[in-house]
Amino acid sequence: MMTHAVIGHSVKRTDLLDKVTGNAKYVADMPFPGLLYGKIKRSNVAHARIRRIDTSRALALPGVRAVLTHENVPRVLHAGSPHPRSASVTCDQYILDYKVRYWGEGVAAVAAVSEEIAERALELIEVEYETLPAVFTTEDAERSDAPRIHDREPGGNLVLPPVIVQRGDVEAGFAEADFILEGVYEGGRPTPAYMEPNVLTCSWDGNGNLTVWISTQTAFMVRGIMAEVLGLPLHKVRVLVDHMGGGFGAKQDLFQHEFLCALLARETRRPVRMEYTREETFLGGRTRHPARIWLKQGFRNDGTITARQARVVFNSGAYGSHGPGVTNVGTAALVSLYRCDNVLLEGRCVYTNSPIAGAFRGYGVVQTYYALDVQMDEAAAHLGMDPAELKLRNAVREGDIAPSNHPLIGHGLEACIEKGMALLDWPALRRRPRDTTGPVRTGWGLGCEMHGSSAYPGIKEQGNAIIKMNEDGTVVLLTGAAGLGTGAHTALAQIIAEELTLPFEAVSVVHGDTDVVPWDIGAFASHTTYMVGKAAQMAAGEIRRQLFERAAKLMECEPEALTLANGIIAVRDRDGPTLTVREAVMPRKGIPAAQLVGTATYHPTKSYSFAAHFVEVAVDTETGFITVRQVVPVHDVGKVIHPVAAAGQIEGGIQQGIGHTLYEDYQIDMRTGRSLNANFVDYKMPLAMDMPEIRTVILEAAPDPGGPFGAKGVGEDPIVAIGPAIANAVFDAIGVRFRHYPIKPEQVLQALAEKAAREGRQP
Amino acid sequence: MMTHAVIGHSVKRTDLLDKVTGNAKYVADMPFPGLLYGKIKRSNVAHARIRRIDTSRALALPGVRAVLTHENVPRVLHAGSPHPRSASVTCDQYILDYKVRYWGEGVAAVAAVSEEIAERALELIEVEYETLPAVFTTEDAERSDAPRIHDREPGGNLVLPPVIVQRGDVEAGFAEADFILEGVYEGGRPTPAYMEPNVLTCSWDGNGNLTVWISTQTAFMVRGIMAEVLGLPLHKVRVLVDHMGGGFGAKQDLFQHEFLCALLARETRRPVRMEYTREETFLGGRTRHPARIWLKQGFRNDGTITARQARVVFNSGAYGSHGPGVTNVGTAALVSLYRCDNVLLEGRCVYTNSPIAGAFRGYGVVQTYYALDVQMDEAAAHLGMDPAELKLRNAVREGDIAPSNHPLIGHGLEACIEKGMALLDWPALRRRPRDTTGPVRTGWGLGCEMHGSSAYPGIKEQGNAIIKMNEDGTVVLLTGAAGLGTGAHTALAQIIAEELTLPFEAVSVVHGDTDVVPWDIGAFASHTTYMVGKAAQMAAGEIRRQLFERAAKLMECEPEALTLANGIIAVRDRDGPTLTVREAVMPRKGIPAAQLVGTATYHPTKSYSFAAHFVEVAVDTETGFITVRQVVPVHDVGKVIHPVAAAGQIEGGIQQGIGHTLYEDYQIDMRTGRSLNANFVDYKMPLAMDMPEIRTVILEAAPDPGGPFGAKGVGEDPIVAIGPAIANAVFDAIGVRFRHYPIKPEQVLQALAEKAAREGRQP
Repeated sequence: MMTHAVIGHSVKRTDLLDKVTGNAKYVADMPFPGLLYGKIKRSNVAHARIRRIDTSRALALPGVRAVLTHENVPRVLHAGSPHPRSASVTCDQYILDYKVRYWGEGVAAVAAVSEEIAERALELIEVEYETLPAVFTTEDAERSDAPRIHDREPGGNLVLPPVIVQRGDVEAGFAEADFILEGVYEGGRPTPAYMEPNVLTCSWDGNGNLTVWISTQTAFMVRGIMAEVLGLPLHKVRVLVDHMGGGFGAKQDLFQHEFLCALLARETRRPVRMEYTREETFLGGRTRHPARIWLKQGFRNDGTITARQARVVFNSGAYGSHGPGVTNVGTAALVSLYRCDNVLLEGRCVYTNSPIAGAFRGYGVVQTYYALDVQMDEAAAHLGMDPAELKLRNAVREGDIAPSNHPLIGHGLEACIEKGMALLDWPALRRRPRDTTGPVRTGWGLGCEMHGSSAYPGIKEQGNAIIKMNEDGTVVLLTGAAGLGTGAHTALAQIIAEELTLPFEAVSVVHGDTDVVPWDIGAFASHTTYMVGKAAQMAAGEIRRQLFERAAKLMECEPEALTLANGIIAVRDRDGPTLTVREAVMPRKGIPAAQLVGTATYHPTKSYSFAAHFVEVAVDTETGFITVRQVVPVHDVGKVIHPVAAAGQIEGGIQQGIGHTLYEDYQIDMRTGRSLNANFVDYKMPLAMDMPEIRTVILEAAPDPGGPFGAKGVGEDPIVAIGPAIANAVFDAIGVRFRHYPIKPEQVLQALAEKAAREGRQP
Repeated sequence: MMTHAVIGHSVKRTDLLDKVTGNAKYVADMPFPGLLYGKIKRSNVAHARIRRIDTSRALALPGVRAVLTHENVPRVLHAGSPHPRSASVTCDQYILDYKVRYWGEGVAAVAAVSEEIAERALELIEVEYETLPAVFTTEDAERSDAPRIHDREPGGNLVLPPVIVQRGDVEAGFAEADFILEGVYEGGRPTPAYMEPNVLTCSWDGNGNLTVWISTQTAFMVRGIMAEVLGLPLHKVRVLVDHMGGGFGAKQDLFQHEFLCALLARETRRPVRMEYTREETFLGGRTRHPARIWLKQGFRNDGTITARQARVVFNSGAYGSHGPGVTNVGTAALVSLYRCDNVLLEGRCVYTNSPIAGAFRGYGVVQTYYALDVQMDEAAAHLGMDPAELKLRNAVREGDIAPSNHPLIGHGLEACIEKGMALLDWPALRRRPRDTTGPVRTGWGLGCEMHGSSAYPGIKEQGNAIIKMNEDGTVVLLTGAAGLGTGAHTALAQIIAEELTLPFEAVSVVHGDTDVVPWDIGAFASHTTYMVGKAAQMAAGEIRRQLFERAAKLMECEPEALTLANGIIAVRDRDGPTLTVREAVMPRKGIPAAQLVGTATYHPTKSYSFAAHFVEVAVDTETGFITVRQVVPVHDVGKVIHPVAAAGQIEGGIQQGIGHTLYEDYQIDMRTGRSLNANFVDYKMPLAMDMPEIRTVILEAAPDPGGPFGAKGVGEDPIVAIGPAIANAVFDAIGVRFRHYPIKPEQVLQALAEKAAREGRQP
């Protein structure tokens, strides 16, 4: 394997010191003279028409500068999410509507000179509702007599027409099976719970240009939608974001309050900031889609899968957001991971009067692979087979048609499973004696996944890069790639340094200003390092070309004769003088400094990363508490650019996945739709002390030539496999099969009691 | 002549509304949490060694965070000005030295939590000086026994070796002359008096990156020198400037306090702002070089000039700054304007213990053309000839070798003189009856000039541009060109709109951030529209090429077959479907939006602009007051991009030129070097109500193919011709010849008295 000087090494992240010292500036840290504070009044009914809204008392309150309601904001239908022209999202939301579709939806906005006054003004707004019948489950919403939440195609509370994916002949496949397994699997409602609540400041200049400082994953999408909704050309909207405290997919969307902030700023001719409270990140944010998956598979006795059929129903909540994309991706995922020639899948996405579900790390796949991977474990149990062996036998291979409908390049899954089995001495682990003396039972489980880098083919993407070389040979990358906190900019700088054979420290990165950087689709779909990284590598190659052109004149040779290594330009097969990169560009007598600019655009298709998570859990049979003791996550990410950052992604994904599988469940009152636990006391997430030992293994089993130096994505992968791994480990520990998440202690106790009753024992 | 849709029209300047509403943000307007305030302690002696400096009492003052003296700042010799590698500037200044070279020089710097505390701390710093003998005039400084102000080459208080320019045989020329004129001409010490005092804020991040918000004409030069002095690579210094309240050349320099601000910020780990008081813009700023010019010319009786000889001495003050450039440019200017084959010129630049002279609109030429043009008027009087006729006869022509040593392209001077003469019916004006009944005498005078766009050949320059086209066909220019207040960015946007046949409103401009924009040498030498404008035009051409490439695919033709007009792309000689620019780049089914980026670099030589100023003055013979009644400035600027902005430059230059010729004189006590009038009460400038009627005429007589659409510079031109025009008009009014500026009322009265005495009359 080629050795590299910069990539593959865990250089010091560029955002590190400012973050640990608290100097990093987030949107809420930015001072604005004359700043006003915006607040949103939220509905306390789940489904209603607004009969009357009276803002006069609010407007009369000293310090209040503007109040907006559906009566005085533009009535423009917009996508709740920023890919308006892709098939991934719906366009079903007004900035403010005369109708309310879930408990907590915004109905009015206030700008005032202080947050306190703005909040008091909210209380003074009087809203009279005409209540409508509400539905909260997809079952209720799909009944023929269910109230219609939206008046749009395809009707019947469907967000989009059912997605059908078919391969081979599923009936024939089931006919060939030695046995058939069938089950219903359910995913709850976790939320991304990013540390930095949604925040933005909007300001207009005298020429009617809007500047938006915002915590977003998709600055150019914010620009595009803002421009569309406000009727501005693109160059009159400038979107700025520096540091971010997480997004996890949800900050791809454009939220109701973000338009309102821009409108309040225009109305008041003052900068206006809106910052969510923690409660509002639940009420006005996005959740993962709750899902119900009926899955049926036929198996031969040797473990081969003969047929797979599924019906997936996603609960979209009150608006469509990424419902179409999640339904397409999540449903199609079931064609793969474990090979099967005969597949019939149906995906549905349904409006309910619940909180809005949207894009979230794992994008539909978390739900469906949970079902698939748990059922594979059930099949192994049925066969009396090692589940790892069963999964290895069926693991997707090179050339198989991926969910994206193109043949897979590389197939890291086998390597991941085998590596984990070898590391743990898995067969021995399976055979270990079980300690049944105390109340605690331990078990091991395996979960697998594959995940695509880039949103292709759903969205035609492109990575762009502009690179400037300064007259001392240092380099500046201009990139639209957002920095969610993942270290993306560090990876991009590494790639450029590697390509130009310069030290990492010679590269700096400019980002987060749509006026300045080349267009970028946004940070999602695990594609930043893969797609933008490739564009950066190509732009660096263009800089090298220009460098060689200038050096060739100085060295009196042809550019083609030049080589670049360790920052030194030399003539191939010629002894004698060389030039450093700095010497090649710096000013000389009679020749001004070279000012090189290289640009590149890259249109990716898609690559897939793979992982196998081996998990040990301990189940306390007296309390029902499940503890994850250790995880051995084995990931194939192609060429790894920054090992520590990649491992950080993996550990963070595992932490989040443990939360979703065992603790996190954003709940609403099933009669009123009222939010029940929109806070970090009642909505429990795993903290540092809840974390297991994690022994991350990163393989470079299947590099993808479409990525820079063969790199693939890693952002979403680790959140997928951990869930079924835990559920399977729980089965290994206590012999109880859970087909949903989160798995709560009271459910464990109840299941143990039922099991004991079935077996005629005391629990 | 070609008609243009955008250039040549006075579109609404992009900075207009924010400036008139007070919303435009200048450096001093920017809020910084935790900001410290920096202040400079200044010397109260003109020439001294610092024997002792005690900062202990200042450091003990609560709220003081750091104190810097020559004892604890890096001892790095740096150019006072930011072209360190050009022949235009010297490198003779330490950040703080143990020696003081003029009254008002900084000797220590303080950072404190408020300006008041910082000022109090300055008083607590004790400095003990060992006084050295001081010299304030170039005559004194050039005496063999004069104290040495700097210990450097070439010695003898010379800033640089004398500049010698020779053409033909001056002795032979004088021998051919019918008569010879000889005189000594003197220029005073005006200051640029920009409305926005020098200001900067420095801040360091955790990675040791320095960000500087600064009012400067030369952001990249600030970056370069800051990096050099602080020992940083270029990409670790980011220089930002948005709006500016003038610079006039002086804000090309890097000032003592600017390094100190960066060092105080590093020392305190806090952002530090330093903002000059108005007094400090005099004490710590730059003035025009006071000059003494001995000029001798031989003439034939037909007005032909047979020989020209001059000795020019510039007073550089305590440091060299732009002394070399000013001496070279100002001296060489005398080879031209009025043709002469035999020329011998010597230019000298001398250190004195006076305020520092530097770059200032008109850069050496104001002084020497004042001498030349007044002497031409003297020659006309001697010949009994109309001075306009004499100047027309001798005016520089196409193909003549310019001061830059390359042949002139175009020769607008004749056209300017002729146009003015025709407009005013100049011969009739010359013959008009004079009113001698009251104390007021009126007179008309003519001053001429030529001025180069770009600093070539002194500096090898380049213009750079990066243009992005958004997916709706709007355009963003990334430019390093500074916006001093001249409307430069508006002109650049016009050029791009014209080239792409888009409306002006479709183009926006990003500037003022060295990390982001392509390198720029800075805004000076009247070259922004000429040089950066050409680069912008070329980059727009590159965008058009890419646009055609994409459109050709969509329209199924060759790119060469396409035309672009009014924002519509069509196939030449083919009826049928066309595409708007927007349609060509926007996303289509299966094809993502085009994200076009075009870059260009332009290496200019030099073009010359020309002007003739016709001026009427009224001299009150009882008070000595001179009033400028009207000015008819006729300018050739090649193709004019923005008529109102060009006229604004001309009117502003005239206002400043009137000030320099009649009022402005920054004075020092000739015994102690103490500053006498460093404020706007005692240093008088012409205000709006002092302004004459100005009837600006802009000719497009001699477009230069090196500029965008033939445009040339206009920034410096108008300040040059107005001075001699006034002096010549005063002679026309009262028959008294003044060979210096400013011409003060008491000097008028005294001269009238002497004249009366000579003529044997009562004054």
